Amino acid sequence: MKALEEKILKDGVVLNEDILKVGSFLNQQLDTEFIMEMGKEISRIYSNDNVTKILTIETSGIPIAFSAGVEIGCPVVFAKKSKSTNVSGNLYTSSVYSFTHNETYQIMVPCEFLSKDDRVVIVDDFLANGKALNGLIDIVNKSGAKLIGCTCAIEKGFQKGGDTLREQGYRIESLAVIDEMDSTHITFRCN
Amino acid sequence: MKALEEKILKDGVVLNEDILKVGSFLNQQLDTEFIMEMGKEISRIYSNDNVTKILTIETSGIPIAFSAGVEIGCPVVFAKKSKSTNVSGNLYTSSVYSFTHNETYQIMVPCEFLSKDDRVVIVDDFLANGKALNGLIDIVNKSGAKLIGCTCAIEKGFQKGGDTLREQGYRIESLAVIDEMDSTHITFRCN
Repeated sequence: MKALEEKILKDGVVLNEDILKVGSFLNQQLDTEFIMEMGKEISRIYSNDNVTKILTIETSGIPIAFSAGVEIGCPVVFAKKSKSTNVSGNLYTSSVYSFTHNETYQIMVPCEFLSKDDRVVIVDDFLANGKALNGLIDIVNKSGAKLIGCTCAIEKGFQKGGDTLREQGYRIESLAVIDEMDSTHITFRCN
Repeated sequence: MKALEEKILKDGVVLNEDILKVGSFLNQQLDTEFIMEMGKEISRIYSNDNVTKILTIETSGIPIAFSAGVEIGCPVVFAKKSKSTNVSGNLYTSSVYSFTHNETYQIMVPCEFLSKDDRVVIVDDFLANGKALNGLIDIVNKSGAKLIGCTCAIEKGFQKGGDTLREQGYRIESLAVIDEMDSTHITFRCN
């Protein structure tokens, strides 16, 4: 998505070779008009797929997932995170390892919100090593729903999470893929 | 908002005299079309107020705040929660006591996202004792921005947080105010 690449170049801040800050439009401050444009693009990508539900994970995935749900015209479900493995109720759960915090947490979705009749697109803000995406895919599989594809706003292509999932046969359609970045330049992957 | 009252009666579940579950449309599953209608209503309420920013708090306030930002045409900023008092950087912070978890947490907003030129509406999903709202109001005051008003989707009127803030002179415009509820009936406050 050309407009997103331009936005990253304009407003993104590369802190180091691993961390790109986009807090001014995609995280703690939300550029609502621009995020709705991303929702339109996600709707376009999956326009022939009869998507019935968007799945994301709290917190920063919610705005872009919400915009996609508005444009597609379907509900959004978000997985909650918990450090406790002691969760109860009728829940689909999975374990996700966080490199950032060096710990494993549980993610969970109430069973009532995903069923075998659903056609699901997973949406998140960042795709790096793919651990969160793997957990969300696991939950979709446990529910029996059909996974149509996964779209993250910004994929850090050099961390290989997206490419590994593509090699496994998943449809991964990120809106912008960064193949290289440092404090002086950002290189996007060509479509 | 009549449509919200009807939605609460149809899809809400009163667990006990304190807890109303609306997870099927306003929390872990998001009815995107309906939440956008709430955004339109918030835009209507503040249509003469030149609002420049919506402020909310993670997590469940984000979707309704986002819809309000889309309809008003302004950015949304969300406060992050932290259990640690050891936060750094240029942040506006405040302390919020949670009755649910019986603990005090810090909420924080980077200074760059709120300024004295902003005209702010605070948006959240629930208003009960008003502790979260007080923390967000404190952050607006620290930033020097002008607080226009506060809108929560569902106010539990019997917990008095909203009425106390009204007595202090704040403009509190909840979309639905519940004055009484139990497993057999819900009584809404008349406008």
